[in-house]
This record gives sequence, C-alpha cells and structure tokens, in this order.
Amino acid sequence: MSPSTIPALDASTLDPAFEARALNTIRMLAVDAIEAANSGHPGLPMGMAGATSALWTRHMRFSPSNPGWSNRDRFVLSAGHGSMLLYAMLHLTGYDLPLDELKNFRQWGSRTPGHPEYGHTPGVETTTGPLGQGFANGVGLAIAEGWLAARYNRPEFPVVDHYTYGIVSDGDLMEGVAQEAASLAGHLRLGKLIYLYDDNRVTIDGYTDLAFTEDQYKRFEAYGWHVQVVDGMDTDAVSAAIDAAQGDPRPSLIGCKTIIGYGNPQLQGKPKAHSDAFGPAGVEATKRNLEWPQQPTFFVPEDVAAFYRQAVARGAAQEKSDAALFDAYSVAYPELAGELSRSLAGELPAGWEDAIQSFPAPGSQASRNASGAALNDLAQVLPNLIGGSADLAPSNKTIINGSGDVKPGDFSGRNFRFGVREHGMGGILNGMALHGGVIPYGGTFLAFSDYMRPSIRLAALMGIRVIYIFTHDSVGVGEDGPTHQPVEQVAALRAIPNLCVIRPADANETVEAWRQAIRNSDRPTALILTRQNLATVERNSWGVGKASGVRRGGYILWANSAEPKIVLVASGSEVEIVLAAGEALGKEGRKVQVVSLPSWDLFAAQDASYRAQVLPPHLPKVALEAGITMGWERWVGNDPSKGIVIGIDRFGASAPYKRIYQEFGLTAEAVVEAAQKLLTDTRGEGMRGE
Amino acid sequence: MSPSTIPALDASTLDPAFEARALNTIRMLAVDAIEAANSGHPGLPMGMAGATSALWTRHMRFSPSNPGWSNRDRFVLSAGHGSMLLYAMLHLTGYDLPLDELKNFRQWGSRTPGHPEYGHTPGVETTTGPLGQGFANGVGLAIAEGWLAARYNRPEFPVVDHYTYGIVSDGDLMEGVAQEAASLAGHLRLGKLIYLYDDNRVTIDGYTDLAFTEDQYKRFEAYGWHVQVVDGMDTDAVSAAIDAAQGDPRPSLIGCKTIIGYGNPQLQGKPKAHSDAFGPAGVEATKRNLEWPQQPTFFVPEDVAAFYRQAVARGAAQEKSDAALFDAYSVAYPELAGELSRSLAGELPAGWEDAIQSFPAPGSQASRNASGAALNDLAQVLPNLIGGSADLAPSNKTIINGSGDVKPGDFSGRNFRFGVREHGMGGILNGMALHGGVIPYGGTFLAFSDYMRPSIRLAALMGIRVIYIFTHDSVGVGEDGPTHQPVEQVAALRAIPNLCVIRPADANETVEAWRQAIRNSDRPTALILTRQNLATVERNSWGVGKASGVRRGGYILWANSAEPKIVLVASGSEVEIVLAAGEALGKEGRKVQVVSLPSWDLFAAQDASYRAQVLPPHLPKVALEAGITMGWERWVGNDPSKGIVIGIDRFGASAPYKRIYQEFGLTAEAVVEAAQKLLTDTRGEGMRGE
Repeated sequence: MSPSTIPALDASTLDPAFEARALNTIRMLAVDAIEAANSGHPGLPMGMAGATSALWTRHMRFSPSNPGWSNRDRFVLSAGHGSMLLYAMLHLTGYDLPLDELKNFRQWGSRTPGHPEYGHTPGVETTTGPLGQGFANGVGLAIAEGWLAARYNRPEFPVVDHYTYGIVSDGDLMEGVAQEAASLAGHLRLGKLIYLYDDNRVTIDGYTDLAFTEDQYKRFEAYGWHVQVVDGMDTDAVSAAIDAAQGDPRPSLIGCKTIIGYGNPQLQGKPKAHSDAFGPAGVEATKRNLEWPQQPTFFVPEDVAAFYRQAVARGAAQEKSDAALFDAYSVAYPELAGELSRSLAGELPAGWEDAIQSFPAPGSQASRNASGAALNDLAQVLPNLIGGSADLAPSNKTIINGSGDVKPGDFSGRNFRFGVREHGMGGILNGMALHGGVIPYGGTFLAFSDYMRPSIRLAALMGIRVIYIFTHDSVGVGEDGPTHQPVEQVAALRAIPNLCVIRPADANETVEAWRQAIRNSDRPTALILTRQNLATVERNSWGVGKASGVRRGGYILWANSAEPKIVLVASGSEVEIVLAAGEALGKEGRKVQVVSLPSWDLFAAQDASYRAQVLPPHLPKVALEAGITMGWERWVGNDPSKGIVIGIDRFGASAPYKRIYQEFGLTAEAVVEAAQKLLTDTRGEGMRGE
Repeated sequence: MSPSTIPALDASTLDPAFEARALNTIRMLAVDAIEAANSGHPGLPMGMAGATSALWTRHMRFSPSNPGWSNRDRFVLSAGHGSMLLYAMLHLTGYDLPLDELKNFRQWGSRTPGHPEYGHTPGVETTTGPLGQGFANGVGLAIAEGWLAARYNRPEFPVVDHYTYGIVSDGDLMEGVAQEAASLAGHLRLGKLIYLYDDNRVTIDGYTDLAFTEDQYKRFEAYGWHVQVVDGMDTDAVSAAIDAAQGDPRPSLIGCKTIIGYGNPQLQGKPKAHSDAFGPAGVEATKRNLEWPQQPTFFVPEDVAAFYRQAVARGAAQEKSDAALFDAYSVAYPELAGELSRSLAGELPAGWEDAIQSFPAPGSQASRNASGAALNDLAQVLPNLIGGSADLAPSNKTIINGSGDVKPGDFSGRNFRFGVREHGMGGILNGMALHGGVIPYGGTFLAFSDYMRPSIRLAALMGIRVIYIFTHDSVGVGEDGPTHQPVEQVAALRAIPNLCVIRPADANETVEAWRQAIRNSDRPTALILTRQNLATVERNSWGVGKASGVRRGGYILWANSAEPKIVLVASGSEVEIVLAAGEALGKEGRKVQVVSLPSWDLFAAQDASYRAQVLPPHLPKVALEAGITMGWERWVGNDPSKGIVIGIDRFGASAPYKRIYQEFGLTAEAVVEAAQKLLTDTRGEGMRGE
C-alpha cells in the first residue's frame, strides 16, 4: 500500500483487510515477544488488540514525541500482565520504544519489563500488574484532572481537559481495591473516566464461572456507572460505545466481549490462552491461521507502521493547539496560568518551608495535632496540596480548614472524603500523584495502613510523592485495643524500599517531618503520628538538638557530656521517655547521649562519620519503642552486654494507654535499669571494643 | 413483674412497654459502660438493640452455659466498635460475663475490651473492629458449616445444621474485603448466611452521603444475594425478614433502617452519636428521654434479666436435643461420627506425621512443588484439610488431587476457588478456622500476601490455625518483574507477632514445614515457597543436618569442623548458595558451619544454649537473603567486622532469575568473598570477644 492509500489514523471504519493486518501486527508482536522471552501473557493482547487499537486511533489524544504533555489523555493498562499489548501500541504509534526493546521483552535492562513500569518506559502512565491497582489509579487520575479543571479552567479556556481510559479485566473487577475505587468514582460522577472491560470469561484458574458469577454490570450500575456491553472484537462497536461514554456524565464501563488468545486455533477462548508462550508449534499454527508470514518474527508491514505512526504528527498538532490555548489563557489569567504551570512542573514556591509555624516549649500536644497544624500552614502556600482520610478525618486531622469537600459536581474544595476505603484511597492517591499538578495526601489509623499496603508499595516502586498521614501509632491508642493498636506496622513500613518513614517525637519534629515529606518529590512518605499528647521538647542552647535534625533521620537530641558513656535512642512518642531516663541517669552522674531517630531510611543515607557521631559504635545503647523490636539490632547490635532493645513483641491490649505503657514496661525506669545494667557490665567505662 | 408474667423468650410479639424496657436495658448498659470508660461507641448499640434482641431471642440458637456447642448458630458483630451491644447481650442471656466485667469496659485485664476479641470473652466468635473482616469471617463460618454438612449429614441426620448471623455496617459494606467475600458468598449460594445491615446513614466523618451514595442493595442483588429492607427499629419487621431470609436459598442482607444513638435526644440520628461517651449531661438527658432511672447505673430490671436469662435453659435443651440426634447418628454412621467428632475436637489421627513422603537426594524441585506433594499426602490422612488459592491454583500447587471443587449446590469437594480475591480469602479462611472442624489453607503469590495482610494479622491475634501457601517468594520469580517479586514481604510477615513464618530450603524442609503448620494448632503459619527449582540437600551422615531441624527454626545443616571459625546462614532458596560457599571455603581449608534458618520465630523460642550452638555469638557470620536485610542483624550483629548481611535493599527487576541473582550479587562467590574478608579482619582466628 503506498503512503497515499494509508488510511487516516482516526478513520471511523477501516478496510477490513487492512484492519485485520493492523490488528494482527499488534497480536503477532505480542506472540513473537512472548515466544522470544518464553514467558508472558498473550491472551489479553490478542483478544483486546481491536478494542485498544480503536481507542488509540479514533479517540485518544496523546503525543508519542512528548509523553509528558500534561493535557494528554491517560491510558491505564490495569491488567498489566497484558504488557505486550501496551508495548506494541507504544512502539507502533511512535514512542521511543524501538523494536529491539520488544525483542528484549522481559530481559535484564530492557524497557519492556514483564509488567509495565512507570518511569521506566515512555508512555507508561502507571506501574500495573497487582490486580485492581490500575483501576484505582485511573480513578485517581480522573480525580486529579477534575480537580485541576475545577480550579484552573475558565470560560473559553478548558486548559485542563482530558479523558482517562483504561483496560480492566475480570481480575481487576474482583479485587476489593477496585470495588472501593469504583464506588467512589460513581459517587464523584467521574464522567471522564472510561474503562474497557475485557470480558473474556477466563482467569488463571479457568473459566470465570469457577468463582465469579455475579452480575458485574449490574454491580457497576449500582455504583452509579454508565454501563454498556459490546462485541469487543468489533472495533466499530467499541468505538461507538466510547463515543456514548464520552457523552455520559457518569464514569463508564464498556464491557467488551472478547475471545482471549484470538487467533491461536488451539487455544483461543480457552483458559490456556491466558499465559505462557505458545511454543514453536503454537506460534506456527497461529500465524498460519491469521495468514501471517512465519518469518520474519516481529514483522510490521510498512503500511501498518505508517498508519499507526501518524499518531506522532497528530499528537504534535494537538499539543500545539493546546499550547496556543494555554498562551491565550496566560494572557487572560496570568496568575492562574503561572500557578498551574508551576504545579504541573512540580515547582514549589520560594520560601514554602518557612510557612509552617514552629511550636513553643514547654507545651504538649499529640503529633497528629501538630501535623494538622503543619498541613494547614502548608496548604496556605501550596495550593495543590490536597487530600483527605478514609473516614477518619476528625481523628487523623486531615482537614484543610476553610476549604470545602470535593463533591459530586463540585470539585472546588480540597478535602476528600474517601469513605471507609483505605485500599481504594491508596490506589487513588497514586493516580493523583501520577497525574501531576497535585500533591496528594491520605490518612487513616496506622493499624489500617495494612489495608492499603499494596498501594503504598507501588508508590514506593514508582517513586511518586504521596504523603500518608498515619495516626494512632502504637499501643498509645489505648482503649480501642489490639485490633487498633499497631505494634508491627512501623517495622513493616520501614521494610518497604524507597518509602520514607518518619515518626516524629514532638510537635517541632512533626513540622520537620512535613517539610521532608514535601521535599521528597521522588518517593512517598509515611508520617507516623500519635493519638496521645507528647511534650514539646525544650531544645537546649548549645547547638545540638534542633528539630531540623529530622532531615538527617536521627540526631543527638540531648547530651550531658561530649564524651558520653551510654546512648539512649528512640523514635516518636518514646523519645520523651528516653529523655526522662537520660535526665535521671544524668542526676546519678552518668554521661548520657539521647538520640531521636525518627527516620531509619534518612539516617541510613547519612555518611558513616555522622552516623558514628550520633550512634557511636563503641558505646552501649538502649533503644525503646512501643512496637516490635525487630530491626533495632541494626542500631544497637545483638550483643546483650552492649545493647538492649525494649519493645513489645506481642499484640497490645485494651486499656487506658498510660496503664498499657506501665504494664508493658515502656517506662523511663525500665530504660534506666537497662542502662545501669549495661554500664555495670562494662564497668561504666566504655566497651571492650573501644 | 412476677416470674409467671415474664414473656417467653421467643415470643413473636412482646408487650410494647416490656419490650421498650428490655431494649432500653441493652442501650443503657452500653451508655453506662461507655460513660464509665469515657470511651467507646454508643451509636450502634442504641440503634441496633431492637434488631439484635429480636435475632437473639426469636431466632438464634445458642447455649450460654456452653459457648463451645459446635452446632450453635454463629453471631458475628462485624461492626466491632459496637462491642457493648454484644457484651450486653452476652451478659443478659447468661454467658459467663458478670456485670462487673461490663463495669470494667475497656480496662486492663477485663473481658470487655474495646473491640470484641475471640478467645478472650465467652461467646465472642471472632475478633472484629477492622471493618470488613467480620463480614468475611461470617462467609467463612457459613462455608465451613456448608462443607461439614455436605460431608457429614445424612438423611434424617442433619448433625451439622446452623445459621451464621451477623451485624454489618456501612463501613463494612464499603471495605473491599467485604465486597470480595460478598461476591464469593453469592457465587456459592450460602443460604444460611444472614446479615443485618445497620443502615443508619452515618459514619465517623458524617452522613454517608459524603462518600457513599451507591445503591448498595442493588449491588448485593448483583452479587446474587437475597435483599430486604425493613424498619430496623421494628423488632417484628426484623424478625419477619429473618424468617424470609431463612427461607431463601441465597445469602441474605437485611437492611435495617435504624436511628443511630437512638434515645439521646440531642444526638440521635446524627454523626456525633457514633462514638464517644455522652458525658454526664448527655447520659442524664438520654435516661430521662427513655424514662430510665438515673440511678443505679448498669441497671437491669429483674423481669428483663429473667426474660433474657431464659436463653440458658432454652440453649441447654437445644443442645440436648442435638446431642440425642448425634447419638443416633453415631449408631447409624459410626465412622462418620467418629471422624466428625475428632475434627470438631481438633484431634489429629495417630501417625499423621508419617503420611508425608520425604524426597530422595540428589534431586531438584521447587519448594512449591514439594509443598503440593506434602499437601496431597496430608490430605489423605486429614480429611478436614481443605482450601484453595486466589486464582493461582496451578502456580501455588494448592489442588488436592482427586477432589472436586466446592461449587454452588455441591460442597462435596475439598478445593476452593477463591477468585482474584486475596483479602476476601484471608477473611474467609479465618472464619473457616474459627468455625472448627476444618483446617483451612489458602494460597497466593508472596508479593500479594500484602493484599490479605489485615486478615493474617487477625489470624495471628486470634491464635487460629490458618495455613498460608505463599509461593514465588523472591526475585527468583524472574521475568514477571518487581511488581511480582517480593523483597520485603518475608520481613514484613516475620514482623507479625504469633505468626509462624517458615521458609524451607529444600523439598525435605518443606515436608517439615507442613508438619509444623499442622502442629501449630494455636496460630497461623505462612509457608514461604519458591517458584524456581532447589537442589534437595544431601543430608550428611554424622547426625547434624536432618530436615527435622526445621522444628527448631534453625539448625546446623553442614559443618566441616566441630570447631568452625565462621558461620554462613540463610533461609529458603539461599541456603543452597551458602552451602556451596561453605564447600568452597572448606576446599580452601576454612572451618565452616552452614546454618539453615527457615523460621526466626521457632528459632527464637529455643533455649539460649541451642541458639548459641547454632549461631555461636563469638564467631563471624555471613547471612544471605534474596530480600531486604532488615532484621538479620538480630542473628549476625551490626559490627561489620564480625557480621555481613548480603541482601537486596531495593526492588527487583524483570529478567530471567539466574541473571537477577547474578546482577544483585546473590551468589556463592559473594558469600565466599564476605567470609574471607571477615576471616582476614579477625586474622582467621576467632573474634576479639572470644
């Protein structure tokens, strides 16, 4: 086919033979890549090639030469195991993903990992694979778009105006995280969220009727979604449904009845088509069946390449038209335009760090309260700081005062009501951060961080700025008892790579923790906060002990000698206890150094000499935490004559919290006793290793 | 009211004045207890007192003097924050929960903790509070009942035949775990599951329309549930709905329109009624409004006490009738009766441990395969071992061969298809274990253990025998990439108190791990298994190194000297690597001890002398794990001249797994190098501390 006869990219109906060739190109790229890797999932790419191609060519606005165009439509492949479908589309439409990358599918160093990874491959909007997460991310993307549109658009100037599309699977629909997000999406009437549901009736175990016989379409109607069901193998039908979805004010689920593994004569429509390479015979039979050349592999007919590659010019033109609109907007609304540009670029206003008040000492307040105050101070200077709580706003102190709620039909507020949906919130926060332009935060009780852990992990893996406000952080919760008392959650969060975990010791450390959370532009931060009051530490005057030490993860909070003989260390609410113990030991004539260690990850990133100054290797140490002891040996060692960790290696109990601290031995007296034991063991004179 | 005029407990309609007094007794016990504790949630007890009383008096079969009666109806207060409702009912109906316990609500050592705790308070069937969990537990209870009924009942002998009731809240309905469980309950047509939904339109943040405007009733219809909506303040209406629910083959949701905090003239029907003590003025006003005596507090009118206390005699009679049926059944079906009795008593058949084959060495297989074989061997001798996977049965090797699937209308199989619903599975497994009579297991990829973590935590808190089969346990997953590669999950599971975590090193350790999992009758066990093949260790002949060392959590797998100079330690798939390193060091003339440490918790429970033998404190050590290093300092210390941990403090990557191990330095060469460094630092001659 000569260039002049190549169909227009957005042709509403294609010549059937050409279309078959175009779709088979997608399918066979997937088949060949999976065969080369001997690993992967051909079923979805083959079944959904048509629906996806219709979406990408006839509806979706994107610019392959600039994947970061802020007003592009977003595309989420929630069923991330079908990654080759996405890679094939990215390659064909002209993203910087050469054919060689497809040939290296699932290999070390390639840009085509087993599941799509944000930040790793141009055009990949989010990391997917763990089912249900992408579904929730898309809700977050659409929420961010809606919020930015409400704040920045003006009559004649729809400067933020795009759709969020996605492909979701049976597995996505079964996952609770997606069900939670779907309910909120319906509540908020996210009309620009449009999902193609690959209704292929197959999961790994077999046909879906093994476990999934609900009326999922009726369920989505109950959530308040616009629901359509079409023949997913018919591109015109899918395209018409997308048109209808765009015209409906509700989020849309378009059920695409497809044939999984379409084209493989032995496997199509069957569970075995879901995953695994077809093998040489299967590939041969599939190509024969689809009238595809056996060789070369990774074959892309020239006319098909030219057809899809039109996306580059089309995208550039759309982007240019967008830029012109924005230029006019900048003239009409210079302040708004400036703010929006800075927000989208991730720039923070100069001096933002000084917007947060510090707290006078002496004083006393829960760190959750200090967090609420810091959040409100920051909200004054960071207009794009938005978020909420999973139905615990009064407890988590997540409300931005003077701002309204984000509501159906009115996104002008900054406070989100996520409902009792921690996991959905986690996935949505990720989508909001991925969208750009906003800094999202979300709160719940620390004990329930477990509910959203898969989303936290993905935020860390993607390296995106999401801020978690986890309050009620220990047995200090008191009467609500062990179900609501975290004991292992701080350790479990510290275990997640690339998550910044900060457990501040008082109000001023909380301020610093918030500063750090905003500064952490390339990773999520978990703020670990108390329910109970904490004394605001009276910082001493000889230079050590400033709350800004939080930035380094750990610092000398107090010392009564430049040559201490023992170190006491804790984080969060236990710092005031070790401080009291330090003072008591000081009165006995002991030379003591008290260390606040709010963030293990920030501290571990300091150079060795700083770490050795804060936690001198040769000195005996006592650590105290109202949680499990696991991990503390990193800081105090495992030699009981040199280091003691006091903690709770059990679940908590229901009682007023002071009683619990007493019963569990989380007391200054216990710390003093441990320190005296260590000092006696070492004859009060340093260590053998000194 | 004299005893003769006390209404019969199961009277279908009560004199309104008497009923009001009865219900107000429940309400005021809650109000007084919460006031005494100055903490708690009065809203639900006051709104649902009527519906609950109707259920407990007119429908539910239970025996206060024998809370363990196996054929009792189960009652789950999924909205666990309404605990005082449950405690009031337990007290009034004659369970061993004296009024003094109610007076000590939420106090140290009381049997009335903030949220209901299984094993702590007689009559509490499950620990609730984290929303959605109780909902899923109830599904598990009903599944266990259905499975036992299918296996053991015979015509004329319905020896297992009871309902599972529950109270669920708006929050429960919003949580994903409940949505997943609800979908499966509908699929399996659990007709004997009946939930009263406290449709009070209020959550912590405010009215539910803040975030929850879906048509939840339609959603449950879509799941395949029988749905009714009634005036929840009208006991007769609730009772009629329960009758209708019993007659329907589907699980039932009875929407009870209630007034939260009913009786408090200021707060009733409002969000503020949800939680917190009313305060003296609020209590006074409430009592006045309900015409209740201001004093004494914790007032129980004699006739009300007598009315509810009839439950003791009724329950004893029901139990007796049940026992008679079982006696006749024992004559007609002695083998079945024996098996059922043993299963319900938690007895294991003699010699069960010998049913599992061991594996010959040399050999090679994935520990997931060995697990599948061990499971099948055990299934031969443990008829009540049942379970499945969250749509990964072929990968997790969870199928019991020769058994069918548990299906709608046919519960005769032993294989469960949980669907892509990890969290729902977790909550359901808890319910199955709580029911008694079955030993449930469930599988998924280890990376997705995060999805079900809140349920795992509750299993550990309750101390119940649930077995998790977590396969694909490290970057050894390979091509699927970082989303599917656990790096922090093993550490995060080790962090949960009372969870037994076992990561076996080869096929024979896997057999021992399964034995331990069955033996762990009072806690859950997580089996951590590989996707990739592992060499079956050739156990040496001089007495050390038997796989039965798994029971002690860690043991000397191999040593070339009784006076080793260095210790190499690992768990799971890394053991074969440190073993190779040990052999290499041996060839260099080094005296080496190689330790397999499959279970930190089992090892920590050993006496100090055994631990010192396995991991001698004075010897340098190298630890290797294909996961984060956090926590390993407990075993090897934090002095880099004495101990080195080789691990991955980052997320994984998509590539064939051998390449990943190489790139991340998880190799015998790296272990040898680390060992040589330590031996050089210490001049090859023990440690300074020796």
